[in-house]
Amino acid sequence: MKIINTIKEMQEIADSYRKEGKTIACVPTMGYLHEGHLSLIEYADANSDIVVTTLFVNPLQFAPGEDFEKYPRDIDSDFNKAEKSGSDYLFMPNTKDMYSPAFQTNVQVTGITTKFEGEFRPGHFDGVATVVNKLFNAVKPHFAVFGRKDYQQTLLIKQMTADLNMDIDIVVRPTIREEDGLAKSSRNVYLSDEEREKATILYKALKATEQLMLSGERERSVINRKLNDVLMSISGIVIDYAAAAVANNLDEPEFFADGDGIVLLIALHLGKTRLIDNLIVKL
Amino acid sequence: MKIINTIKEMQEIADSYRKEGKTIACVPTMGYLHEGHLSLIEYADANSDIVVTTLFVNPLQFAPGEDFEKYPRDIDSDFNKAEKSGSDYLFMPNTKDMYSPAFQTNVQVTGITTKFEGEFRPGHFDGVATVVNKLFNAVKPHFAVFGRKDYQQTLLIKQMTADLNMDIDIVVRPTIREEDGLAKSSRNVYLSDEEREKATILYKALKATEQLMLSGERERSVINRKLNDVLMSISGIVIDYAAAAVANNLDEPEFFADGDGIVLLIALHLGKTRLIDNLIVKL
Repeated sequence: MKIINTIKEMQEIADSYRKEGKTIACVPTMGYLHEGHLSLIEYADANSDIVVTTLFVNPLQFAPGEDFEKYPRDIDSDFNKAEKSGSDYLFMPNTKDMYSPAFQTNVQVTGITTKFEGEFRPGHFDGVATVVNKLFNAVKPHFAVFGRKDYQQTLLIKQMTADLNMDIDIVVRPTIREEDGLAKSSRNVYLSDEEREKATILYKALKATEQLMLSGERERSVINRKLNDVLMSISGIVIDYAAAAVANNLDEPEFFADGDGIVLLIALHLGKTRLIDNLIVKL
Repeated sequence: MKIINTIKEMQEIADSYRKEGKTIACVPTMGYLHEGHLSLIEYADANSDIVVTTLFVNPLQFAPGEDFEKYPRDIDSDFNKAEKSGSDYLFMPNTKDMYSPAFQTNVQVTGITTKFEGEFRPGHFDGVATVVNKLFNAVKPHFAVFGRKDYQQTLLIKQMTADLNMDIDIVVRPTIREEDGLAKSSRNVYLSDEEREKATILYKALKATEQLMLSGERERSVINRKLNDVLMSISGIVIDYAAAAVANNLDEPEFFADGDGIVLLIALHLGKTRLIDNLIVKL
């Protein structure tokens, strides 16, 4: 696997493969790779000629007071894992190259980004849209692969690429979980042993609420109460949101209709760590 | 010349030429082509293998109450002129294809867009940035050609492409003028005979102010006063702005320094028609 540090070199490589008729896949990451990321790289490798994994901890998408500075980093380990999973290039632009002092452009998706994560992380989704737009223009992929754990982010990226006519297919792959159900996340490393144990409540709450829905419940307030009640059974949790919404547009009707895909979304604080998870329920 | 109506077909054509190693040039227009546009197409033709002229009257870039509905259109004439000037494709997407009902993405350049046109045409530059981004993603050009008459727009587009890593060179070509100095513009067709005569005052004011600067004047307030005084010598004119600024960033220092490129910018209403013009002065 080759490391590429400049946008210009990345573009030249992409142009060259495109001229040869090769298919390029992009897997955008902030590094500290876990099995979730690796499953995306493996998917990309199985479905393209050239896989570019990007590694950039994007300052724009951290809201003030968040964990940009202490976000976990381990480049040697990332290199080995990405290479073993089938990545051909590791694109690691430096921050100065990505954001010059004169930088003044913002890509904003409205609508679907205003609620849930958008409400609790001001500026986060603008940062995501802008950096993904930039990474796509640098890597020039035919398709890009994202994990479903960041569910709202996957909606945003699909919307942005469609709205801006970006000729890139967006592939969303399932969340990879620990044996006890906890979604793999670079931020899990922050958890103490006790918190790690408590963290299983996210998946338990999602599955318990799914059960309620599969047994016939359609009223949103009842579904939301179930989700919150299960989470609140654990001490030391502060919930940002725990809510059901129509999966493809995040609408929140009073009653869900059969045939809708529903997404159950959770974001909460466990000690100093913020965790998110979600589950799609097919009615 | 071939007309292309869908984004998808345009992208397939671009991909195919790129695979063959051909250079693609894009000339974005809102149609009603005049010699200014044609000079851009001719430049593109002389410097690329394939010229794509885009023709799209972009509703997003018209502020409320502006002339979107009555903006002049003449597609047959545009076709003939573009073809004669060397265009290979006329890309005419329809509005539904460009802006679906679910459209919700905005590309925004801050800083340089806040003053002058940005102040008097709210939303205009967001509309320009967003549509040009979309057109670039549809046409996939190696370079794009713009006229200097929309001076602030050319700064915006250079900034956006740089900030978003769009791998596209932006070429800015000189304003084409009538014999009496009036800048060619699709909107000149709105002018009555009397207004058409009065409209020469824009270029006269620019040239008179340039003379003042070349004779040594560096104080911005004095330069601006000259520009406004010449314009105000004509009745029936309402000035939006007439001002000098540093050409590359639109800064407005109290005194300009030798070595700076200075741009003189004018926007005014003459009857019901809004006219803009500018001149770069090298100190």
